[in-house]
Amino acid sequence: RVDARSLWLCRRYYSSTSQWTLSFTIFLILALAFIETPSSLTSTSDVRYRPAPWEPPCGLTEGVEALCLLVFAADVSVKSYLVGWAQFRKNPWLLAYLVVLLVSLVDWTVSLSLICQEPVRVRRLLRPFFLMQNSSMMKKTLKCIRWSLPEMASIGLLLAAHLCLFTMLGMLLFPGEKQDDRRDRQRLTYFRNLPEALTSLLVLLTTANNPDVMIPAYSKNRLYAIFFIAFTLIGSLFLMNLLTAIIYNQFRGYLMKSLQTSLLRRRLGIRAAYKVLSSMTAEGGAHPEGVGVKPQDFLQVLQKVQLDSDHKQAITEKLHSRSGDLLSADEFQKLFDEFDKRVIKEHPPRPEYRSQFLQSAQFLFGHHYFDYLGNLMALGNLVTICVFLVLDAHVLPKDRDDFVLGILNCVFILYYLLEMLLKVFALGLRGYLVSCSNVFDGLLTAVLLVLEISTLAVYRFPHPGWKPEALGLLSLWDVTRLVNVLIAFRFLRIIPSMELMAVVASTILDLIRNMRAFGGILAVAYYVFAIIGVTLFRGVIVAPGNSSLAPDNGSAPCGSFEQLEYWTNNFDDFAAALVTLWDVMVVNNWQVFLDAFRRYAGPWSKIYFVLWWLVSSVIWVNLFLALILENFLHKWDRRSHLQSLTGDLGATSE
Amino acid sequence: RVDARSLWLCRRYYSSTSQWTLSFTIFLILALAFIETPSSLTSTSDVRYRPAPWEPPCGLTEGVEALCLLVFAADVSVKSYLVGWAQFRKNPWLLAYLVVLLVSLVDWTVSLSLICQEPVRVRRLLRPFFLMQNSSMMKKTLKCIRWSLPEMASIGLLLAAHLCLFTMLGMLLFPGEKQDDRRDRQRLTYFRNLPEALTSLLVLLTTANNPDVMIPAYSKNRLYAIFFIAFTLIGSLFLMNLLTAIIYNQFRGYLMKSLQTSLLRRRLGIRAAYKVLSSMTAEGGAHPEGVGVKPQDFLQVLQKVQLDSDHKQAITEKLHSRSGDLLSADEFQKLFDEFDKRVIKEHPPRPEYRSQFLQSAQFLFGHHYFDYLGNLMALGNLVTICVFLVLDAHVLPKDRDDFVLGILNCVFILYYLLEMLLKVFALGLRGYLVSCSNVFDGLLTAVLLVLEISTLAVYRFPHPGWKPEALGLLSLWDVTRLVNVLIAFRFLRIIPSMELMAVVASTILDLIRNMRAFGGILAVAYYVFAIIGVTLFRGVIVAPGNSSLAPDNGSAPCGSFEQLEYWTNNFDDFAAALVTLWDVMVVNNWQVFLDAFRRYAGPWSKIYFVLWWLVSSVIWVNLFLALILENFLHKWDRRSHLQSLTGDLGATSE
Repeated sequence: RVDARSLWLCRRYYSSTSQWTLSFTIFLILALAFIETPSSLTSTSDVRYRPAPWEPPCGLTEGVEALCLLVFAADVSVKSYLVGWAQFRKNPWLLAYLVVLLVSLVDWTVSLSLICQEPVRVRRLLRPFFLMQNSSMMKKTLKCIRWSLPEMASIGLLLAAHLCLFTMLGMLLFPGEKQDDRRDRQRLTYFRNLPEALTSLLVLLTTANNPDVMIPAYSKNRLYAIFFIAFTLIGSLFLMNLLTAIIYNQFRGYLMKSLQTSLLRRRLGIRAAYKVLSSMTAEGGAHPEGVGVKPQDFLQVLQKVQLDSDHKQAITEKLHSRSGDLLSADEFQKLFDEFDKRVIKEHPPRPEYRSQFLQSAQFLFGHHYFDYLGNLMALGNLVTICVFLVLDAHVLPKDRDDFVLGILNCVFILYYLLEMLLKVFALGLRGYLVSCSNVFDGLLTAVLLVLEISTLAVYRFPHPGWKPEALGLLSLWDVTRLVNVLIAFRFLRIIPSMELMAVVASTILDLIRNMRAFGGILAVAYYVFAIIGVTLFRGVIVAPGNSSLAPDNGSAPCGSFEQLEYWTNNFDDFAAALVTLWDVMVVNNWQVFLDAFRRYAGPWSKIYFVLWWLVSSVIWVNLFLALILENFLHKWDRRSHLQSLTGDLGATSE
Repeated sequence: RVDARSLWLCRRYYSSTSQWTLSFTIFLILALAFIETPSSLTSTSDVRYRPAPWEPPCGLTEGVEALCLLVFAADVSVKSYLVGWAQFRKNPWLLAYLVVLLVSLVDWTVSLSLICQEPVRVRRLLRPFFLMQNSSMMKKTLKCIRWSLPEMASIGLLLAAHLCLFTMLGMLLFPGEKQDDRRDRQRLTYFRNLPEALTSLLVLLTTANNPDVMIPAYSKNRLYAIFFIAFTLIGSLFLMNLLTAIIYNQFRGYLMKSLQTSLLRRRLGIRAAYKVLSSMTAEGGAHPEGVGVKPQDFLQVLQKVQLDSDHKQAITEKLHSRSGDLLSADEFQKLFDEFDKRVIKEHPPRPEYRSQFLQSAQFLFGHHYFDYLGNLMALGNLVTICVFLVLDAHVLPKDRDDFVLGILNCVFILYYLLEMLLKVFALGLRGYLVSCSNVFDGLLTAVLLVLEISTLAVYRFPHPGWKPEALGLLSLWDVTRLVNVLIAFRFLRIIPSMELMAVVASTILDLIRNMRAFGGILAVAYYVFAIIGVTLFRGVIVAPGNSSLAPDNGSAPCGSFEQLEYWTNNFDDFAAALVTLWDVMVVNNWQVFLDAFRRYAGPWSKIYFVLWWLVSSVIWVNLFLALILENFLHKWDRRSHLQSLTGDLGATSE
């Protein structure tokens, strides 16, 4: 719809305020999982030491949730109004939005009518949908993943065949004969029966039980090692990497395509704007030169549009510099090329001092050798912290003497303060704040100063035998030292001066920008699996009674959940579930989780963990690798393209 | 040199006989490591049960070595003669070859004069050079790796900075205070002092100690998990994958380039051959049409050249089919395009039978439905083996009754035999042997038949309670079942009928072909590191006295080398060293090796293991991934290119 009211609504809807409100609402409804009934507000999730968590009174989280759902209802109604009924019916995302909202409302009323005692909350599972629905990039990525599923399935089939074949061979090779022999006892645990053998080899596919599964057979005859090495080589090196290749192949050009689409859209938008403006010009007065846009009209529009002020200024300057009356379509298009150029910020002029002394001081402290001195001091600071860490390593914390380190710390912090003041004096306040690295230095110095002053106020001035007491988790003094380590980030600014490091660093920065969609999908996966995990496994891991406080738990076999004391890795609340899922995603030692949950919850729990392994470790990690490859190669190609371009230009000018 | 004698020598040198001799010599000298003084000819490398290995008498391996060195000396002299002195001086590989040979000879004489009691054999370390020197692809790959070293170094620098920063933060955060508290005891083991903390985080970078290192701190306060998750996220996901991207970027186009170079070389060679032949024609008789090659001359040359007979035939046919007298340069070039086309083997004609019955039988058994029946039988065979494995899982091996399975096995093997005979009858012997899958079936059937007959001969015909005895490692009956599982490979032939699977499978096949250079480099790395490892750590791991035969070793802490019984993973002989290096390359649980060798050999052993980790797991595995990506994308692009080409052709013909 393009009538005036719709346009007004559209502008309102896409204004930053309402978009921020929407984002905040999504964040809020997702964050509710942390404080809802199995609340995560305890200091530890260890089942042995965990205090009873604070339970929110019935109605608190539900109230917040109602507010969020109201916002979403407003969102979906505005969106469907803007899109129109005909489009709405065809758009599966909007329809799903409506359905999810309705289901959530019904579940919410059920929940309230049961006074928050309902066994399952379906709406918690549906919440990530709001996040996914709001991001077009995430929808695109999801579509891309859906396309590559058949290819992944073909590799999955090969992997399954590989696994089955080796399981059969393994069971034939290691029948666990001669039970009386001690060396064969362990052999039984890995290839005892079909599910056991399958699990052993599945875990070996992730290399998480690598030498262990091989040891009993290998200890008997060294030729048995060939079986395990062949399995890992084919499964883990060949097929898994082939999966990576397939996923990368699907995502190759994904970034390129999305960039091209956004460029095309902008072109279209500019063209449309040109049409509108030129028709206005034609209406306003008869120009003999034909169609075109009056620069004044354009400037008027430009003032009203929300744009980055730097870009706005650059366009205005370019507009003023040109001659001629009306803008042609090409010129109009070219004006917007300014967006692609990086705006080089000009340094504001340095303050001018009259006195000769002040001028020379300004030259001295504005010179970049002064920066080098600052870096040297920071390095010294880091080295002292390091040295004292090494020296204090063998001293018990309560016997440590922090006198010298306290004095040195004071000196360094005073130096940073002095450096900041001198730089402000030399460059002027605006000149100082224009560079990001200076802002970082200034902030760090301010934080350090505040911490140091409060440390001195609490523990008084360092004297021999000075020993700050711990308050809570860390003493104020430890916090000061921790923040002091952040001074290491000063060295990051050396990176752009090394050519290759600069590419690498800019890839990382770009990656973080492009990663939001991927991160969002990971967040959705984590959320859904954590909620399912909490529903399935809440309270399944139980503390081992009073015997747990015995000095060592010799009763549990080595390598088991109990012996490794993985009591913190449970599904009793949302935050603990997230960390448990992270541990499974990292894959190392996940057989411990498989085994423990098989014992505590039942053999069907394996399905949950294997599914999560497939989603997170197999699919998502490969996606992430594909994204990094794509970003890096894109960056690299553009850089070498630019280099060859400038080379050509240089050759031409010669 | 191009005089007649050199050419003769050159042809002799590059003949398949002498190249095979050279390859075999290289294989022989490399294989010597298995039987030389710490000989690997024991059934197990477990230090507890290992018998005294057979030691070769002094002079045996040295004699073989002397023969090999003589072959190499002949090789280097022929090569240098062919290349000429001027080129020889400039070629670093040839110079190095000579030096390595001289050093080996000197070391060999020293070894003999000391009656094989010398402490170190330098020449063992130099042996992989012969392998590397002989393969031009390996030299190229090595050059490629050398080029990407600076870029890897930049990421390495970032990784090191990341590691150092987090080590400092970790030591500040986890000072190991309050030693009396049980929960803090473990905390000390990971961040006790600087080397310990650095090792913990280095191992965490490979995720090999993932939940363990986190548990003590996380159990105290759940916020500490953020530290470890951030470390793994940045180090393992970001930086390590960026390293993959950098290595892939360097190797992108590597395959393409090497293909192009070999094509270019062939073109040059063909062009030179054309020049020579046309000059001969010009000398032979005056042709009015100008320069060109007489087809008869070409055919004569073709007969003498060593070529694949299929290609030779195709070229001859093409030559006969053309009209005109002299071959122009273009035509000459085009003749050789036949090499790029895959030769489609024609099926030899089926034998023709007179009788109506035989003809219909031939139709029946030559039909591909008969293949499906065979596949069905093979599936049935696999299913029966599987079912009996599951059924027998809970029965002790000595109580198992193999009567039914023995009978079924006989039936299946008889069916395979029948199938083979019927197929030979239907297709004729040549028609049967033309397809690779039939040859595989035939071989498998023959092996199975021999095994089955010998099983019957040894254990007599199956009767209720039939139970084949084990002879050595496996009973003959187990071997029969193992070979029977190989029938699963019959199903591989279904793959090419699924489009995507076909691409995947052909990628794997191509990969194996292209992998020789990479595999060679890995072999060199393994060889060198294994020899160094044997020199450094031989006899370092000692058996735990008589106490090891106690029923369980409760004295060793959980997760230690002794508790996990990794006694087989030592460096006491070459084969054991290879497996140990493999285990470290797979990375899982490598902290156990680090810890054990620190205790047994000294803290400097860490350098060896970290170096091996860098070479194998970081560089080589990434190289391998790059190779797979390159191969797959190349294949994929060519396929889609071919598809678009045929699409265009179809459109044009319409």
